[in-house]
Amino acid sequence: MRDLLPEDAEMMRYVEMVSRTISKLYSYEEIITPVLESYELLAAKTSEEIRERMYTFKDLGGRKVAMRPEFTASVARLVVNRLKNEPKPMRLFSVGSLYRYDEPQYGRFREFWQANFELFGSERPEADAEILILTNNILKKLGLKDYRFKIGHTGILRGILTKEGLDELQQNSVRQLLDKKLWGDALTVAREAGVSQKGLDVLESLLETKGEDAFQVLSQIRDCIKDYDDALEAVDNLWRILEQIRDSREQLEIMIEAGFARGLEYYTGMIFESYVPGLDIALGGGGRYDKLIELFGGEPIPAVGVAQGIDRIVMALTKQEATQLTAKANSVAVISVKEQCMAKALELSTMLRNKGLAVELAVMGRNIRSALSDANRRNVAYAVIVGPKELEEEKVVLREMKKGTQQTVLITGLAEAILSGSM
Amino acid sequence: MRDLLPEDAEMMRYVEMVSRTISKLYSYEEIITPVLESYELLAAKTSEEIRERMYTFKDLGGRKVAMRPEFTASVARLVVNRLKNEPKPMRLFSVGSLYRYDEPQYGRFREFWQANFELFGSERPEADAEILILTNNILKKLGLKDYRFKIGHTGILRGILTKEGLDELQQNSVRQLLDKKLWGDALTVAREAGVSQKGLDVLESLLETKGEDAFQVLSQIRDCIKDYDDALEAVDNLWRILEQIRDSREQLEIMIEAGFARGLEYYTGMIFESYVPGLDIALGGGGRYDKLIELFGGEPIPAVGVAQGIDRIVMALTKQEATQLTAKANSVAVISVKEQCMAKALELSTMLRNKGLAVELAVMGRNIRSALSDANRRNVAYAVIVGPKELEEEKVVLREMKKGTQQTVLITGLAEAILSGSM
Repeated sequence: MRDLLPEDAEMMRYVEMVSRTISKLYSYEEIITPVLESYELLAAKTSEEIRERMYTFKDLGGRKVAMRPEFTASVARLVVNRLKNEPKPMRLFSVGSLYRYDEPQYGRFREFWQANFELFGSERPEADAEILILTNNILKKLGLKDYRFKIGHTGILRGILTKEGLDELQQNSVRQLLDKKLWGDALTVAREAGVSQKGLDVLESLLETKGEDAFQVLSQIRDCIKDYDDALEAVDNLWRILEQIRDSREQLEIMIEAGFARGLEYYTGMIFESYVPGLDIALGGGGRYDKLIELFGGEPIPAVGVAQGIDRIVMALTKQEATQLTAKANSVAVISVKEQCMAKALELSTMLRNKGLAVELAVMGRNIRSALSDANRRNVAYAVIVGPKELEEEKVVLREMKKGTQQTVLITGLAEAILSGSM
Repeated sequence: MRDLLPEDAEMMRYVEMVSRTISKLYSYEEIITPVLESYELLAAKTSEEIRERMYTFKDLGGRKVAMRPEFTASVARLVVNRLKNEPKPMRLFSVGSLYRYDEPQYGRFREFWQANFELFGSERPEADAEILILTNNILKKLGLKDYRFKIGHTGILRGILTKEGLDELQQNSVRQLLDKKLWGDALTVAREAGVSQKGLDVLESLLETKGEDAFQVLSQIRDCIKDYDDALEAVDNLWRILEQIRDSREQLEIMIEAGFARGLEYYTGMIFESYVPGLDIALGGGGRYDKLIELFGGEPIPAVGVAQGIDRIVMALTKQEATQLTAKANSVAVISVKEQCMAKALELSTMLRNKGLAVELAVMGRNIRSALSDANRRNVAYAVIVGPKELEEEKVVLREMKKGTQQTVLITGLAEAILSGSM
């Protein structure tokens, strides 16, 4: 697992903070669930692949527990139990660390961070649109460039395979292979499971159907699947979602992929991933999962949501050098010339902080020269030098570090001199 | 472990956010270390009491790991390894969840949250003062009332017990009993370890020496321990720390306790806890631990720090009803009258969010009346009703929910009408 040193930690917190800001603007209420959950809960509905890679152990009370590998089970537990009587729609936001014992590889960490948005209670296309739009808003606000959305609909494949007579299990095998882009294998499994030649032809041409002109691609898909009613209904649903996004004038770069299948089995409708071309990993992903709450023993509640991969968004931002955090812009080193001026230096530090300035008080007892050289190395913008002579006149020396210029200013005007950058 | 529902989660994040704001104003740089660490690292220097209550297990690679019970070991690891060549002073901030398998009781949770501030490199009293002052600033900024600081110095007891011939182990036994307020037992152990009758008399009267008039109490302590040079030096050190705080005009409510002993063995100088009378738990605590980094195998670096107990601060704020978070003050429900107005409703929602307003889009397809009644139940301040008739004139209906008044406004003036509260 990683340590995040200040620069990386700041980026992480920045993405978290922007996600939280967007959650407030979209009225998603934050909940915090524990990192440790009962193994039974986490294992119940997750894929075998994730289940095997959980950090699982017995606690001191003998209970089998695991560190959460995703937020889904915990949020579902809350919705089924403590939140079941809340009025719908219910919009929930969660952010935190998740744990999977994966082999370390590019963009994959054993401790990773997600910001999750889930909208419970609405099966309407505007709910799907909202999830896509808020994801777009986060990435836009972060300053990410050239990001896109890959969008599909589980109902297309499901509609075809169901009509071709495949049961849930058989369908999942096909979808898992498609998710790994093993198209040949997927078609073979489909054939062996009894899909007709016509069905196979439809599937094969679907896998090639994708493109950026959303409505044109959807029309193509429609032509291709015209004998499969449920699949057609799925396309209509996707059409309505995208229509609302278009008419709302949101700027989303969209790539429709008819053969797109996301790993998790619980999706029932629209599915999507956000990504940056050239970075071979999804930044986030989500979709509709109307049967999830039922799976966890609750009353059926339609749901749509997204998980933003915070680490991956940080990677993309760093690669693009898109975000320059300028925390040190107005920072001030406060240096006391003599021991007896230290209390005044403390007092001035508080005064400047009350004006919103980041202050580093010199606490090493160094002489002025070496304290200034330290301030310089830290890229501090200003130094305030507190000496007995100037204090007699209620003044201090204010030094602009980059320029190397300094002047004596009244303490009463110190904060203003720094804030106005008037030197 | 607990779930934090929206109201609690918001308070938690609020305390975290204020701590982070203060960390920036005081130039503490944030680092993020993993929740899981090697058991060896965590167990090496912690007390037996904590060690036995760690969540410990073997990971899938066969390594013995544990969930961190405190930040200290992780921060020390970083300071010893990756940060060892950073210029001093080094100010570090960390915030996150910690894990101890404690019996659930008032103010004690198995998953709890801390905000940690540590200043490495300075042994001077202004560094100790800074840690006390920033803790004061966090609690003040949060709006907490009537909080206080209990302050002591490990050097007082240590100076006496060392001169009385007790080794480190014997001293720790005495300190642990004092920490649990078992004064009689502490004195018995001291006597059995060889402390003279004079020493016992000094200890006994020290335990009763405490009070709010800091310098008077310190003078009393001085008189009491006048034959113990190292203890006198400790009092001088505390004197200088408190002098700087006094002269800097920071308003700290201080209670000096000569017999105050904090649980952790690694403290070497000033120690303190912040608390609220009537709430029988510390909100935070810290002090000076100049030998910690050496214990973890690094070059000796003086250090002083504090851990703010976020859960406990939340408890205190809640009990005092000190903080009213008013997230919903300017919230807006956007309701589309007909399907064909939904895209416009989405567009207006984005427009309002860009002005910083929290918007709940109606996504249930309800009729106006039931959508308004839902908005009312959620305490939303305004409703924007998007209907085809008004749209023809580029207008919408704006309803002030509490008053029940409404008017038709131009879309171009909608955000301003809400932000100015002009209805």
